[in-house]
Amino acid sequence: MTPLAAPLAITLGDPAGIGPEIILSAWLRLRAEGRAPPAFVVGGPELLRRTAEALAIDCPIVPIGDPAEAMFASAAGLPVLAGLDGPLTPASPSPEGARLALASLQWGVKFALSGVAAGLVTAPVSKAALAAVGWDYPGQTEFLADACGRPWRDAVMMLAGPSLRTVPLTVHVALAEVPRLLSEALIVHKARIVAEGLRRDFGLLQPRLAICALNPHAGEGGQFGDEEARIIAPAIAALQAEGIAAFGPVPGDALFTPRARAGYDAALCMYHDQALIPLKALEVDEGVNVTLGLSVIRTSPDHGTAFDIAGKGLADPGAMAAAIRMAGDMAAARAKP
Amino acid sequence: MTPLAAPLAITLGDPAGIGPEIILSAWLRLRAEGRAPPAFVVGGPELLRRTAEALAIDCPIVPIGDPAEAMFASAAGLPVLAGLDGPLTPASPSPEGARLALASLQWGVKFALSGVAAGLVTAPVSKAALAAVGWDYPGQTEFLADACGRPWRDAVMMLAGPSLRTVPLTVHVALAEVPRLLSEALIVHKARIVAEGLRRDFGLLQPRLAICALNPHAGEGGQFGDEEARIIAPAIAALQAEGIAAFGPVPGDALFTPRARAGYDAALCMYHDQALIPLKALEVDEGVNVTLGLSVIRTSPDHGTAFDIAGKGLADPGAMAAAIRMAGDMAAARAKP
Repeated sequence: MTPLAAPLAITLGDPAGIGPEIILSAWLRLRAEGRAPPAFVVGGPELLRRTAEALAIDCPIVPIGDPAEAMFASAAGLPVLAGLDGPLTPASPSPEGARLALASLQWGVKFALSGVAAGLVTAPVSKAALAAVGWDYPGQTEFLADACGRPWRDAVMMLAGPSLRTVPLTVHVALAEVPRLLSEALIVHKARIVAEGLRRDFGLLQPRLAICALNPHAGEGGQFGDEEARIIAPAIAALQAEGIAAFGPVPGDALFTPRARAGYDAALCMYHDQALIPLKALEVDEGVNVTLGLSVIRTSPDHGTAFDIAGKGLADPGAMAAAIRMAGDMAAARAKP
Repeated sequence: MTPLAAPLAITLGDPAGIGPEIILSAWLRLRAEGRAPPAFVVGGPELLRRTAEALAIDCPIVPIGDPAEAMFASAAGLPVLAGLDGPLTPASPSPEGARLALASLQWGVKFALSGVAAGLVTAPVSKAALAAVGWDYPGQTEFLADACGRPWRDAVMMLAGPSLRTVPLTVHVALAEVPRLLSEALIVHKARIVAEGLRRDFGLLQPRLAICALNPHAGEGGQFGDEEARIIAPAIAALQAEGIAAFGPVPGDALFTPRARAGYDAALCMYHDQALIPLKALEVDEGVNVTLGLSVIRTSPDHGTAFDIAGKGLADPGAMAAAIRMAGDMAAARAKP
């Protein structure tokens, strides 16, 4: 693996959620496996120290004053940027916690934009808690798009696991709205961003994009639904004309068999569940949410704050470990000459 | 396993498709594993003999004159009902072949209805080839419903594999039509049939039915889509009031993780791909299509005639073997005192 020129920045997320504990456990696990990329947590040395103590997680905290120290500090423990901290109140979200989560995110993206950090791994935040302190973004992704000076529609969510990557082309909308939200332009726009992201950050020279159908059996020749002929096939033709290895429309139920999965690098899906059902069925506890289309590398675990189990030591750090590892791999791929 | 009082009837399907070859290979495989229930093929002794010869499948054919002979003939070879046959023309569908497929199906259902057969396993037919000889059903299932004197809407398709059973509540319709086709009455009607089928033919005293949401995150409290509150939740309440162990609505992407799958006996899904994507992703080559709600037991492999590979020995007999085994298990469960 190409060594990184800078460490990854891991944001705290909402400190009342499972963020702090899964950061500790995930990092320990990766270090034990010899697979921890250089990384630091953006703030919370005291909060993390208390979390480790409360849950008997044997993870020394190394407060650092400058992200660059994280390149060499990991033998002694988890490097955590000093100067930003808050009290430990697991399962009790508060305005103070929301402000800490936000500050961690703001600093993290600054480090990533300036190159002080090689990429960003974000722990989960609570949109409700952030809204209560005046933050008015639908999620961290849109905030990051603004910070990177990109339109929101350029920030494309990709779910990635060891054997499958999927991209939902529409996301948090009612299923009834999906058919009218789809367009040739939308598919082409997002597919270009996915192809470019897979080239730049996943080391795939000619990424193969499988484009999923909307209707069962891809509409069976127009018998039930015409979106395949009217929207999806023209989008695929336009992408192929640009030299992008797109193919389809493939019927949804044919696209996620092991044989089919071997034939593409990412599946572009028409709606949320079409992308998320196979990913969560197959990539148990290892689903990483990757944001493509930004100037910075950004991954996050594919779950929320889980306030209900925070502070109990029950949270599975698998997805956070996968998110850290994937951000490291992406930064290494991007750094390659 | 309870011994069967009668053998299973296996229909030929379209003889130009992969039906004949997968019947031979599936039966041989089950016999070798000691798991072949008593069964016979409804017609085609010469056709099957030639198929075995052409593909070097070492499966002796035992022509029988009466289904009852199938209870004891299997040591000598695959019992096949004599008196109904046709020429071998792999990959070339013909009116003659379609008529043979239809005759095999008609006789099969007669045997099942009279109790001469304990259940029916149907090989794939070609709707186009059957339509060309004047058959005007959308599929074998509707034909069987008519033969059993049941309305089509009582015939409920369930996809079943070793670790997952799913039921699509709407099937071959455009995705855009799904929201307006769903109703509380539809969900309750089909869920009752599934619960009864799982009790009678799968030996589950109190089947647990997970009811899937339509919208992502089950609509997130009405933020995107109201079908969960307006249609699905009332249906679940009605089912629970009848003593059926239904629960949900569960967000689609949360329903097919291994942990979630352990909590139910069947997942009732709102549309085709929601049911078929996880099944085909997880139950590779072992998906069985079970028709619940008929008076007779009926299973079929979850694939089509595959004319393009017929006669080449390339067809995977896994799903047919699973369909035969499942029909045998269902007949045994139904026969239990």
